[in-house]
Amino acid sequence: MTQASPDGLRRLVAAALERSNTAPANAASVADALVAAEIDGQKGHGLSRVPGYAAQARSGKVDGRAVPRARRPRPGAVVVDAADGFAFPAIDLAIAELAGVAPTQGAAAAAIRHSHHFGVAGHHAERLAERGLVALVLGNSPQAIAPWGGTRALFGTNPIAFAAPRRGHPPLVIDLSLSKVARGRIMVAAQKGEAIPEGWALDKDGRPTTDAKAALDGAMLPMGDAKGAALALMVEILAAALTASHLGFEASSFFAADGPPPRVGQFMLALDPGALSGGAFAERLETLLAAMLAEPGVRLPGTRRLDNRLKARSGSIEVDDKTLREIESLAR
Amino acid sequence: MTQASPDGLRRLVAAALERSNTAPANAASVADALVAAEIDGQKGHGLSRVPGYAAQARSGKVDGRAVPRARRPRPGAVVVDAADGFAFPAIDLAIAELAGVAPTQGAAAAAIRHSHHFGVAGHHAERLAERGLVALVLGNSPQAIAPWGGTRALFGTNPIAFAAPRRGHPPLVIDLSLSKVARGRIMVAAQKGEAIPEGWALDKDGRPTTDAKAALDGAMLPMGDAKGAALALMVEILAAALTASHLGFEASSFFAADGPPPRVGQFMLALDPGALSGGAFAERLETLLAAMLAEPGVRLPGTRRLDNRLKARSGSIEVDDKTLREIESLAR
Repeated sequence: MTQASPDGLRRLVAAALERSNTAPANAASVADALVAAEIDGQKGHGLSRVPGYAAQARSGKVDGRAVPRARRPRPGAVVVDAADGFAFPAIDLAIAELAGVAPTQGAAAAAIRHSHHFGVAGHHAERLAERGLVALVLGNSPQAIAPWGGTRALFGTNPIAFAAPRRGHPPLVIDLSLSKVARGRIMVAAQKGEAIPEGWALDKDGRPTTDAKAALDGAMLPMGDAKGAALALMVEILAAALTASHLGFEASSFFAADGPPPRVGQFMLALDPGALSGGAFAERLETLLAAMLAEPGVRLPGTRRLDNRLKARSGSIEVDDKTLREIESLAR
Repeated sequence: MTQASPDGLRRLVAAALERSNTAPANAASVADALVAAEIDGQKGHGLSRVPGYAAQARSGKVDGRAVPRARRPRPGAVVVDAADGFAFPAIDLAIAELAGVAPTQGAAAAAIRHSHHFGVAGHHAERLAERGLVALVLGNSPQAIAPWGGTRALFGTNPIAFAAPRRGHPPLVIDLSLSKVARGRIMVAAQKGEAIPEGWALDKDGRPTTDAKAALDGAMLPMGDAKGAALALMVEILAAALTASHLGFEASSFFAADGPPPRVGQFMLALDPGALSGGAFAERLETLLAAMLAEPGVRLPGTRRLDNRLKARSGSIEVDDKTLREIESLAR
């Protein structure tokens, strides 16, 4: 592991992308998002993505020079076309639009189409909460989870992220994917040739498997069994059908450089807590969180990310050597 | 069991409530909702509720003569005060408001406060979907689920309901509570003196228990472990904190006739699929559902309710004798 400064990493990632057919503004947006994930300890959405992103921008699977566009077909409805570019510039645009619209409308939704991997869903919700809004952020991803009773993966791992502004604290952030475990953990086991516990995944014939490679060809099991599968369907409808995007089983890989663009979708909702609660929201939320924290065994969701950020603020974060060298060679 | 006609049951339930200090319009709204639950096979939210509802209206815990009021503090934000009455008249009002507002705004949210048990959450989402809207409906309820790592129940069982309009079919409806099993199943086991499986609940000291009575004094386990507990917190924030309502651990029982009103809250979101998808929603949704149904083992969520409704349309439904006699005696 190597110690590196967040600012230096942002410059390095942006340079690697600019050298890979990506416009500077887009490269900066992507670099901000990936380094923020790395800082928070979400390495599966962090620097490890850079080589794959660069390869996709080089092959043209991702249009690194895309300019996302926003329309507002109704006063409370924002439609953002990511134009087959990286997701983060489109997400930035959607956040700016929602932050302008939601306080006056009370509620506003954004549908992002022609999009790509959007990283840590909780970060996008958190940014809306930093602007005083209660936010729900959903996305779909290439096929990973089968409908309950089925063997063929149709839905993505389909994260649900939620954030709420707090009085005198950073926002409360909830961020979870609807697979029982992150797909990355199965990919790591497959690379190492290790077995996975039963209950994580099915093979391609729908049988429970402990073989990580067979699991990657099959389907991941949802958290919460049938209920989790139903939630994955709900997210697929909101993030893909409602945004006129590719469904999980139509979307190409977020990793491979070949093939057509994935064209997945994202859904974002922003609510003005002052309008809906008549000003009571902060007191109600703090009363709830205080009751939770009254028990010593309870931590609020998202607490670890705050600890990780504090560590990074001291100047440097630990980065995997091999990944860093790959990014450096791309930036040269 | 006795065979009874839905129309006759609606009249009977309304009469029982009118004789229990409830205004005719409110009694009709409640009777519609409880009989609809009974028809769908959701007996825990059906006729079994009538004696408890009547007792609460008689004691004044529920104001049977309350008139719910709606305000619109922002163009896309509706606030409904259920005024310590039954939930269903307030829900009716919120649905009417959202159905008027969401098509022009693109997105609209309703916060219902000073509310009570709102029965089958999926029914309310379904009514919005019948008006062409994509709907999310959440509610909190008296304390049932502990935060992850904790032993004290703070959140309700906190249902998530979602509905989407379909082309040529009744709406797709997803409706699930965030406890691993319905609290009613533990109540039935306690009444019969039966054990419950491990993994359903904790006793009041936070230990796993198979004793149904101990489970009712303790906490129910969430579906999906830590992720389910995080979703229960999210619903608690949206349905209670955002609506300026009582939190699960502040709310009085939905069953007992004594004590103050429960004052729980409900959150409803209505989205215009045409505006957000640019007209693609129906095709995208049907493509997704067709892919699901291509596998013989897969059924769409909510299918059983449609089968039950078909049976009820033939003229009569099966009703528990004891419950029916109790309601008849209240109506006399």
